[in-house]
Amino acid sequence: MAVNQMTGRQSIEFHEAPHIISSASVVGPKEGDGPLGEWFDLISPEAEFGEDTWEEAESTMQKEALQTAIGKAKLSEWQIRYLFGGDLLAQLTATFFGNEESNVPLIGLYGACSTCGESLMLASMTVAAGYADYAAALTSSHFASAEKEFRFPLGYGSQRPLSATWTVTGSGAFVLAAKGGHVKITGVTPGKIVDMGIRDNMNMGACMAPAACDTIYQNLMDFNRQPEDYDQIITGDLGYVGQTILIDLLKEKGFDITQQHMDCGIEIYDRDTQDTHAGGSGCGCSAVVLAAMILPKLRKGIWKRVLFVPTGALLSKVSFNEGQAIPGIAHGVVLEHC
Amino acid sequence: MAVNQMTGRQSIEFHEAPHIISSASVVGPKEGDGPLGEWFDLISPEAEFGEDTWEEAESTMQKEALQTAIGKAKLSEWQIRYLFGGDLLAQLTATFFGNEESNVPLIGLYGACSTCGESLMLASMTVAAGYADYAAALTSSHFASAEKEFRFPLGYGSQRPLSATWTVTGSGAFVLAAKGGHVKITGVTPGKIVDMGIRDNMNMGACMAPAACDTIYQNLMDFNRQPEDYDQIITGDLGYVGQTILIDLLKEKGFDITQQHMDCGIEIYDRDTQDTHAGGSGCGCSAVVLAAMILPKLRKGIWKRVLFVPTGALLSKVSFNEGQAIPGIAHGVVLEHC
Repeated sequence: MAVNQMTGRQSIEFHEAPHIISSASVVGPKEGDGPLGEWFDLISPEAEFGEDTWEEAESTMQKEALQTAIGKAKLSEWQIRYLFGGDLLAQLTATFFGNEESNVPLIGLYGACSTCGESLMLASMTVAAGYADYAAALTSSHFASAEKEFRFPLGYGSQRPLSATWTVTGSGAFVLAAKGGHVKITGVTPGKIVDMGIRDNMNMGACMAPAACDTIYQNLMDFNRQPEDYDQIITGDLGYVGQTILIDLLKEKGFDITQQHMDCGIEIYDRDTQDTHAGGSGCGCSAVVLAAMILPKLRKGIWKRVLFVPTGALLSKVSFNEGQAIPGIAHGVVLEHC
Repeated sequence: MAVNQMTGRQSIEFHEAPHIISSASVVGPKEGDGPLGEWFDLISPEAEFGEDTWEEAESTMQKEALQTAIGKAKLSEWQIRYLFGGDLLAQLTATFFGNEESNVPLIGLYGACSTCGESLMLASMTVAAGYADYAAALTSSHFASAEKEFRFPLGYGSQRPLSATWTVTGSGAFVLAAKGGHVKITGVTPGKIVDMGIRDNMNMGACMAPAACDTIYQNLMDFNRQPEDYDQIITGDLGYVGQTILIDLLKEKGFDITQQHMDCGIEIYDRDTQDTHAGGSGCGCSAVVLAAMILPKLRKGIWKRVLFVPTGALLSKVSFNEGQAIPGIAHGVVLEHC
């Protein structure tokens, strides 16, 4: 049996690559109205999801996403050995209350908007090592709970410059197993914190682009690949501003990803009609775009190999108000058709 | 080669058990004055750790703990392939700002006070699977930053009932490798969320005891062991109130752990002179007691096998103010002398 192995400086290559055997996406009405609307599994007609608070609404999204993914895999909940989950809220409120009835051992994660990558990375490492027959990865974000958490409650009506992104109301869930799907995770590149000293919490793309650059560069070096070895290099939520910076930064390091680059935050909304400025963001953004758009294309073989790089901006209200900069982090996941 | 394997319902047994090759503890003055004072690696004479804010103080503790552990292992920072870290603050402020200069890929974790168990669990799974030569686990808590995060800033002078615990100002770091120490991690039991509907944020012991019971019970079942197969069963921060509840709950399930049970929150302070009420708490509590007291006894062979179960209470200011209960979670780590 070929064993999994460390590759290069910070990557892992799976020789027994785990499969993503099912996925699910649950979104709010604004996301349902966007260009990817027809591909989501469940679109709520209202952002409250039938709940009394924004936090409970987000928990409900998580619950529905996980149940849908488990159902699509024709499994029962007790067969999921470990759940790797997270969200943007302090103390992972959405994740813990969303999964408290699930009876599945839960590994709580926080990597800001990179958490979708972090959860897939750990779930794939767990399955590839034989620690679980089935593991799940689950993340979410909600526009209203995130505005309250990071800026102001919606009722305060804060203004948004054009560099600001719009937090996606959505949750994506993924079930992984040793075999059984048409998409496998062949490697991962856990990311480092990169702090370029940027202090603008209305320009997350600029905060995260250097971290995306670092992880993509390291992935290319570790696996000895060129950008064209990937059909797509897909970041989480850099938006239009961050995309430009990322492409420039990688050019300085000798790689031109203009042809391969796609960003989930750019794909999810229609810039001209939805008033979302620089694009979408949040750990729900990359998760629902992965479930609704990226995985289907990989399943069909339209894309053979994709580098998926959710990006996170590491700020809290406290650190921001205390004058700290906003560092970024990005985790890379290599997805291949099989 | 014997392979690692799933054991029972939710545990993992490592046949190539990774070793904890070094550990370090950094604490504040109150912890230094306590019964374990002489065993800590570094005691700061003031809780500010030379910084301007409580959050930066906590970050500095993490930095010092990690550097000390890496130094004791006679390694350089670049040799640590992955760092598994977390703290109690919203968006892991202490962890991200404490490690942004470290250049080590970082997996951010949140499991409330159970995070020390969560980080050791994932670091050991990573090393045992051959994904890293060296991995580190790092957690912290700080009394002042935690009061601000979960209750009120210190300046407000909130009152504390006797059931309240005192958040430990401390950080513990651990370096893991395939070989090289006298303590190995032979298995882990990732925990589930357990919600008994308790709503008192001044009685964390009661919130967490049912989760500790669930994880300990499952560990005993999965590994087919009796309490006496462990020299000690050590919870993170149940304190005096939670200890009583845990012992009662496990008796109802047919296991008497009265002889084996120890709690880090009870050990760290002197109840009679330090005015800490029900005991210590926080992800720094179990981490520094593990580094300063538990590991040395295991290294010397005074204890042969210990079940270490850090416990977490899953609340946030938001969920608490919205009337949610406080569920608990606990992750189990089996430590053995070698």
